[in-house]
Amino acid sequence: MKCGHASSPQMQAGGPLSRFPLQQLNTAASGSESWPRPQKHELSDPSSMNSMMIFYLLYFLCLCLSVACVICLCVWNSLWRGGFAWDGSQLEFNWHPVLMVTGLVVLYGNGAVLYRIPLTWGYDKLPWKLLHAALMLLSLILSVVGLCAVFNYHNAKNIPNLYSLHSWIGIAAAALFAIQWVAGFAGFLLPWTPLSMRKLLKPVHVWLGGSILILSIAASISGINEKLFFALKGQTNETQPYSSLPPEALVGNSLGVLIVVFGLIVLRILSTSEWQRPDSSPEDRTYAVRASLKQKEDLMGQRCNQKCCVFSLFQPILREESD
Amino acid sequence: MKCGHASSPQMQAGGPLSRFPLQQLNTAASGSESWPRPQKHELSDPSSMNSMMIFYLLYFLCLCLSVACVICLCVWNSLWRGGFAWDGSQLEFNWHPVLMVTGLVVLYGNGAVLYRIPLTWGYDKLPWKLLHAALMLLSLILSVVGLCAVFNYHNAKNIPNLYSLHSWIGIAAAALFAIQWVAGFAGFLLPWTPLSMRKLLKPVHVWLGGSILILSIAASISGINEKLFFALKGQTNETQPYSSLPPEALVGNSLGVLIVVFGLIVLRILSTSEWQRPDSSPEDRTYAVRASLKQKEDLMGQRCNQKCCVFSLFQPILREESD
Repeated sequence: MKCGHASSPQMQAGGPLSRFPLQQLNTAASGSESWPRPQKHELSDPSSMNSMMIFYLLYFLCLCLSVACVICLCVWNSLWRGGFAWDGSQLEFNWHPVLMVTGLVVLYGNGAVLYRIPLTWGYDKLPWKLLHAALMLLSLILSVVGLCAVFNYHNAKNIPNLYSLHSWIGIAAAALFAIQWVAGFAGFLLPWTPLSMRKLLKPVHVWLGGSILILSIAASISGINEKLFFALKGQTNETQPYSSLPPEALVGNSLGVLIVVFGLIVLRILSTSEWQRPDSSPEDRTYAVRASLKQKEDLMGQRCNQKCCVFSLFQPILREESD
Repeated sequence: MKCGHASSPQMQAGGPLSRFPLQQLNTAASGSESWPRPQKHELSDPSSMNSMMIFYLLYFLCLCLSVACVICLCVWNSLWRGGFAWDGSQLEFNWHPVLMVTGLVVLYGNGAVLYRIPLTWGYDKLPWKLLHAALMLLSLILSVVGLCAVFNYHNAKNIPNLYSLHSWIGIAAAALFAIQWVAGFAGFLLPWTPLSMRKLLKPVHVWLGGSILILSIAASISGINEKLFFALKGQTNETQPYSSLPPEALVGNSLGVLIVVFGLIVLRILSTSEWQRPDSSPEDRTYAVRASLKQKEDLMGQRCNQKCCVFSLFQPILREESD
């Protein structure tokens, strides 16, 4: 797939950020649509350097909050809720908050901001697309297993499923996430998806991505709140009441605060156009041009055997598409 | 304040959207900063017309959802929770969800999208700034009264305040909202605030505005969920249990869904740069230039008596500031 890249004179000049020789061309043609329009990234400019430093500060915070969330989840469910099992008992339920928050919030948020890391901009986009899709798939799988845990527990205890507002919001988030993943895979990874479809899909994908995170945050907060009220009933179940804020309540509440702060930082990163990837790396174009070529071949009823070395075809086709 | 406007030749030509004669000038100088950069609004362009139609569709949905939320809140608390009073009883608590959701979600969201309504773009910005501030103040007052209702109820029943995750998120939203309102008033309405400070404040104001709405949504969902679990305990308090989804539960859950959909639409409107107000209306400049003039006068230790008719001074000062 990569033959021809190294020999391109455009690829030889300068450092990673000088690898965007076709940056001025119409990005829509490459499947890297211009909505919202990314701004110029000139690292020699002090204000851009400053902006990058703020990005890395926020990204570092994101990573710290991710670790803190997972630690809080594990400590809460191990120390005070008895640990984990898969036997229809309360211990199986304990997987539910751990897997849902780890999947639908922590991994999801980290997967969403992946393209914004400036260190990745100098490299081909396709591997990052695949990593984004893989992280999101892992996140989706964890969420589905987390849902299975609560359904199993409810079924074993004859508790109805999906009646609370928490469950309505949570299941909506998971269902939209599944639709989003399938649509994202079909729209951005299958090479025969028309470029016009990608252009239409991208703003919906970006908006729905943020919306799913907001739904996940709302579901997480309502779920933790509900769980702490159920678990800390005071004399009724021989625990310290939630209202006296015992250590478990403090850890649970802190987890909720960490989730909200994490979500707001992720949404901040996603909404800052300055931190969008300048979508013009050659591999991305290789991929998009290959898709475009395939569509043209299909139209002519011919199969082109040159599936590998298409780099030499870039410039005329891109010029044609950007005209 | 408005003298001189009608006589300006720039104000006489064309319809409302042709009233931006200085659109190309540096908007930062007017306190209408260029972050994120608004795009061109040419209503003769079919894609812009289409975009405006989508805006009005979403805005109409916003208004419908606002009404639906308030109706749901009133029906829920009147029909099933016994109505309203201010006597420390459960009836006083009933004001809490009604006022918090009406204030911190419905009015807040409508106040936030006010500047995006294209019909307002042809008019001076200052009245819309005042309406925005007034709507937000009303929203803040309703929220504070809603908080008083729950504190009074808790105090009357010897229930501790601010222990649940719902209350932590809710009080954070209300506190940030109060800070946001004061900072917004000082930053964007007091004429002696330096323009550089406005430029710094605007992105923070926009981001914090969206974040407060997300906090409010999370607090509302967790609060409604908690309330329905408390209210519908089945045999314990002789009600139909929440898990059997009686009409009250359906109304409460539907209210939660309406709140989430409303919030997502408001955030969608706020995040679409195409729907940002082109910030160059003369009144806005009058106001900003007046503020700028005042700063210059203060620096020189002089007081200028011409506080009203400054329109004739626009062009040279704006040219000077945009240079």
